[in-house]
Amino acid sequence: MREHFEIQAQDAAGRIGELRVPRADVTVETPALMPVVNPNLITVDPARFPEFGAEVLITNSYIIRNDDDLREQALDEGLHEMLGFDGAIVTDSGSFQLAEYGEINVTTEEILDFQYRIGSDVGTPVDIPTPPDVERERAESELEETQKRLAAAEGVETGEMLVNAPVQGSTYPDLRESAAEHAYATNLDVFPVGAVVPLMNEYRYGDMVDVVAGAKRGLGADAPVHLFGAGHPMMFALAAAMGCDLFDSAAYALYARDDRYMTVRGTEHLDEMAYFPCSCPICTEHDPEEVRQLGDAAREELLAEHNLHVSFAEIRRIKQAIERGDLLELVEERARSHPAMLDGYRALLDHADQLEETDPASKDAFFYTSTESAQRPEVQRHRERLARLNPEGNVLLSEGSRREEYDASWRVKPPFGPYPRELSQTYPLTAETPDRMDRDGYEAAAKGVARLAALNPDTEFTLAHKGWPASALDYVPPRVDVVDLTLQSESVEDVESESADESDGGSSEE
Amino acid sequence: MREHFEIQAQDAAGRIGELRVPRADVTVETPALMPVVNPNLITVDPARFPEFGAEVLITNSYIIRNDDDLREQALDEGLHEMLGFDGAIVTDSGSFQLAEYGEINVTTEEILDFQYRIGSDVGTPVDIPTPPDVERERAESELEETQKRLAAAEGVETGEMLVNAPVQGSTYPDLRESAAEHAYATNLDVFPVGAVVPLMNEYRYGDMVDVVAGAKRGLGADAPVHLFGAGHPMMFALAAAMGCDLFDSAAYALYARDDRYMTVRGTEHLDEMAYFPCSCPICTEHDPEEVRQLGDAAREELLAEHNLHVSFAEIRRIKQAIERGDLLELVEERARSHPAMLDGYRALLDHADQLEETDPASKDAFFYTSTESAQRPEVQRHRERLARLNPEGNVLLSEGSRREEYDASWRVKPPFGPYPRELSQTYPLTAETPDRMDRDGYEAAAKGVARLAALNPDTEFTLAHKGWPASALDYVPPRVDVVDLTLQSESVEDVESESADESDGGSSEE
Repeated sequence: MREHFEIQAQDAAGRIGELRVPRADVTVETPALMPVVNPNLITVDPARFPEFGAEVLITNSYIIRNDDDLREQALDEGLHEMLGFDGAIVTDSGSFQLAEYGEINVTTEEILDFQYRIGSDVGTPVDIPTPPDVERERAESELEETQKRLAAAEGVETGEMLVNAPVQGSTYPDLRESAAEHAYATNLDVFPVGAVVPLMNEYRYGDMVDVVAGAKRGLGADAPVHLFGAGHPMMFALAAAMGCDLFDSAAYALYARDDRYMTVRGTEHLDEMAYFPCSCPICTEHDPEEVRQLGDAAREELLAEHNLHVSFAEIRRIKQAIERGDLLELVEERARSHPAMLDGYRALLDHADQLEETDPASKDAFFYTSTESAQRPEVQRHRERLARLNPEGNVLLSEGSRREEYDASWRVKPPFGPYPRELSQTYPLTAETPDRMDRDGYEAAAKGVARLAALNPDTEFTLAHKGWPASALDYVPPRVDVVDLTLQSESVEDVESESADESDGGSSEE
Repeated sequence: MREHFEIQAQDAAGRIGELRVPRADVTVETPALMPVVNPNLITVDPARFPEFGAEVLITNSYIIRNDDDLREQALDEGLHEMLGFDGAIVTDSGSFQLAEYGEINVTTEEILDFQYRIGSDVGTPVDIPTPPDVERERAESELEETQKRLAAAEGVETGEMLVNAPVQGSTYPDLRESAAEHAYATNLDVFPVGAVVPLMNEYRYGDMVDVVAGAKRGLGADAPVHLFGAGHPMMFALAAAMGCDLFDSAAYALYARDDRYMTVRGTEHLDEMAYFPCSCPICTEHDPEEVRQLGDAAREELLAEHNLHVSFAEIRRIKQAIERGDLLELVEERARSHPAMLDGYRALLDHADQLEETDPASKDAFFYTSTESAQRPEVQRHRERLARLNPEGNVLLSEGSRREEYDASWRVKPPFGPYPRELSQTYPLTAETPDRMDRDGYEAAAKGVARLAALNPDTEFTLAHKGWPASALDYVPPRVDVVDLTLQSESVEDVESESADESDGGSSEE
């Protein structure tokens, strides 16, 4: 067990956690966003970060080490005093510079020692950030080198400082998985998924999800995971739903410098804005024209403050969603901000089995809000649980009312499929679904019927549905009798409410 | 032409407009949200409304008239001084009370005269708010009565005061349409769609859309439309996309009184909140536990302020989306906040032809972000425009590269279908689409192919697609040759980029 990380609540593969950072003597609640501080170029004073909700920041020890003034100041005062920040401070190692410029002048041992001496709370070795889409051989050999460096990191005396164990492996999910297993087996503490920035820059959110899902499979549940370089609030919910706990944002400042304004729906350019689509203190007090009139420094600072406000509000929104159990509903919405985000969400649902492992069995409500909802882990779980039930004799599966001539009279509800009426009030069967249900939902329900029939070869089934499309009925095996209630006079009595239906002796029947 | 309302920008059926209110000597930019002020119970001082962005408020002249103190004060000082508000003031008439309690003690003539005398800027006659689902006969006879009252209103001397002409008709879209035609033919000024509150209270957003679409069909484009009683920010985008210009929110205060916290995703209860999922000044400076500890009045005021901030931010977001031309993308997101909102969006797309009339021909970008995107008006418009093109000879429609052996080599792109390569850089064919395209998108494209083939019976077509599903290929008529590029060695060359493909002599070909 990694004692410095404790999970408080879960939803899908997302979680609220507490990361204890002993050297700073603080506990960071995750998911947490770490503003990146470029020590050469301060946009928002780190002393003000707590105003926005930041408990932890990240800065680059390599830049500090290579600058005479910063190095001396950091060694002399320590990072916390130098930056004026009392929370936890994470330091990067120069791996990014290695990826950008091909070489750097420091070893893992040297940089970890330096990080320790300047008072970092979480240090980072010099790993090799292998880019996406390289030959497998290169990904493997660079991963081997990264793993040597993790071993070197284990040997450095770093006191109470936590140490990152980056997970590489390019776009090979199986390499990411074995890299994660290896990292998890070290005595290191925090697990950044590295080199995903190129995927995010190219809007390859589907590939990003596959990479992270690979890494997550190799890590224990008690491993705090940092999605390195993920700074846009548009994708925090998706990343959190995969089980990422830490994000870092250089974007809040970099975007502001370029007059770019972040929203959970994407990025706008100040020049093209007539209105500020946001409720933050900056956007409530100013309009775009006013901000355009400001000098460069003032404009940059206001935009950076807005960018931080919108980013931290999204973090709070994600935490509230995890508490409420509607994180996937939030991801549903964010998936509509860009086609690439839809790819990310569709990729996430390809890993429904992985999400299902940690998804709570009971939550507030399941909202069916798109065709993607039919692929959610809850639908899959319900279908699996049909194996635990034993319908016998002549069984009606109906969207309408019970019928006495059957031995048992179950409900059937898109997208879940059939279930005994006693389960009507249990999650997820209490789901709210649209009146205008789509074929994906009907088909998912029909697959449930097919599975129940396959599991119970000696039971006779009748499916009484309300106008399901042919594409759904095609999944129902021929041995199931099928009745369309919308074509029958019987449908008149089906207006009776579900609860009334449940109350008249429902549980005595099966 | 109604000279007091001018449209500045349009997207789908939504618009940014300027409503000139001569008596207040102000111009209100629409879509506008009017906070409802209950003169007996002030939660947020109307003098502070401009802080939130309110240019107009609405209050109830019937309540004022029936209260001796309020009546005398209003007659004496006028509404603007009484409420401390310089913007436009709309007054309701007591129709709501009529609907709730069955009778009221005032006529249209009396209440309009009273409204005029207390200085209202937009007055309202006493119409009959017919509830949903009543017998058609009742809806018709009540509508007749409402129309008599509009005639009476036309006869009242009201100076520069604008006057509302409510549109009723219960849940009969054709009655709403004829009611709207009648109202539009009066000399009255603003057009509230009335009695939709019961639909919204029951989350019948699909029915609400059908009702509003009916009313909109009967009104000229220059008619400012008020969706009476629509106060939840979750549905502002949907209502705006239908062409509603004015909303009113009593909810900001009523919800606050009940510890309910509004978001664009729905409503949360303060007791169940661990985090404030919002960036507004209230939520940035407080957390839920702090607010729970406050006294009733202070807690109610803070929650009401949050509710106003989040509501007005959504109004700005809608305006920015209309300016950018991505209002439907915003509706896509909001549709995921509740299954009933999905019903509303699906109902909206049933009226794609109606949206298409005002939708700009060219915008920034089309984002395909759900299966619903395949039903958007732009897809429909593209399919209609195929009639203007004349492909001749032997024509390739390909997701891959051009081929010399054909007389013409068009592109084909889900969800739009086929188009000549010269149009590649025009809206909406510049659409961003997901890598993981869904069958709805492929099917929409296949319908485009089918339509092109039907329009050009003498032309020979070959469709070269990349792995379209059978459900899409079923739409392609047998006379079109079909090739799956993913099964051909040819597919190797298809990695060349679209732009490269366009540049090598594309326009000379057809």
